[in-house]
Amino acid sequence: MSGTAKTLLYGVGLGPGAPDLMTVRAREVIARADRLVHFCKRGRRGNARATADAIFAPDPAREIELAFPVTTEAEVGDPAYDEPIAAFYEEAAERLAAEMAAGRTLAVLCDGDPFFYGSFMHLWRRLSMRFPCEVVPGVTAMTGAWGEAGAPITWGDDVMTVLPGTLPEAELARRLSDTDAAVIMKLGRNLPKVRRALIAAGLEERAVYVERATMERQVVARLADKADDEAPYFAMVLVPGEGRRL
Amino acid sequence: MSGTAKTLLYGVGLGPGAPDLMTVRAREVIARADRLVHFCKRGRRGNARATADAIFAPDPAREIELAFPVTTEAEVGDPAYDEPIAAFYEEAAERLAAEMAAGRTLAVLCDGDPFFYGSFMHLWRRLSMRFPCEVVPGVTAMTGAWGEAGAPITWGDDVMTVLPGTLPEAELARRLSDTDAAVIMKLGRNLPKVRRALIAAGLEERAVYVERATMERQVVARLADKADDEAPYFAMVLVPGEGRRL
Repeated sequence: MSGTAKTLLYGVGLGPGAPDLMTVRAREVIARADRLVHFCKRGRRGNARATADAIFAPDPAREIELAFPVTTEAEVGDPAYDEPIAAFYEEAAERLAAEMAAGRTLAVLCDGDPFFYGSFMHLWRRLSMRFPCEVVPGVTAMTGAWGEAGAPITWGDDVMTVLPGTLPEAELARRLSDTDAAVIMKLGRNLPKVRRALIAAGLEERAVYVERATMERQVVARLADKADDEAPYFAMVLVPGEGRRL
Repeated sequence: MSGTAKTLLYGVGLGPGAPDLMTVRAREVIARADRLVHFCKRGRRGNARATADAIFAPDPAREIELAFPVTTEAEVGDPAYDEPIAAFYEEAAERLAAEMAAGRTLAVLCDGDPFFYGSFMHLWRRLSMRFPCEVVPGVTAMTGAWGEAGAPITWGDDVMTVLPGTLPEAELARRLSDTDAAVIMKLGRNLPKVRRALIAAGLEERAVYVERATMERQVVARLADKADDEAPYFAMVLVPGEGRRL
């Protein structure tokens, strides 16, 4: 929805994790919004809210917590996962719609950028035709990662491919063999498979493993030097391009 | 170069163009640096410096302007282009090295993010082993573009491919046919070719044209509705992914 009506729903990108990598606009929108909305796992504080903590102390009267249903054992694509998650987004959207119908502005706190693999998108597609909506773009986690890794990612006419680590091994290997630069997201338990695909593509030596980029306890290592295959879901692997140097 | 030595060289990402899409860290580094360095075409103000103008008034005593040599008529890959450009980076790096040797801190102002197709990278590879260097990541132009276009770019397990419009038409078409989401950068006079490649891949209807995202005189249009093939070099085409909706 566009036009001159006052924006009620903001998807606010908070960047890769370091609080000072928020944009000035993100800080202003968060400071002004009637309600701060964040996603979390039941009983835990969400990443995005934790990033915002450095700037905005928790204020229970102003916060709306959207706690994902517990879906242990079930995988994406399995109705035992998809159905409760879809119901959760439905319910969350209606809860936010009621707030906006009462005239309140909402800032949904998003890790990285709201429109790049973001949970916010599932709210946005339910609400953006009904309420004036705006996205505040953020520094993506991968952008934070290649900066911290000292790894310029694309040079000259390099092609860059972003791959979810959830893809099948053969597809990962095929796509890695056919690109100049790559970012592999959603690692977690996919790391052993991702490593095999990189080896198959002859890229393990060039690959850089990055965990918690820009945050405390950041890890940057050559993947070939990383002895174990333990990785959090939000860790990633970078394959920097080697295009035109001038 | 890493370690505990005081950083002398900062590559500072200024984001897609709107001054309030700079990060808080970018503003702080710029405020503190002894010298602000920016690239420009001879006789013109660089984009990045213009973005910073909103915050930091021009201060001739503090500025270092790196003016690209004129290379009209010559193309990338042609020695008539590559040689003067390489000599320019060499000379620029030595000029900055002399500043740092005198103990001054430098903030190189970069459009978008310094490590994503950035001119800064050519300075970084000449200087980062000699002087303590740090990158301040920025919101990339493409991130600003999909936010403004209301076009969530990747859903679920979508693969995203970033393609320079400079690639040959057949390669563009092949890669566009083999991805879920795409961003085509460096449009300019490549737009007619890019459009043909999108048509060949059956994607013209899904493609969104974005010019000057987040800035004044922004243009967002369905590519199929854009009657002409005029585009500035920094315009781009987005092909949003259509992956898993929950």
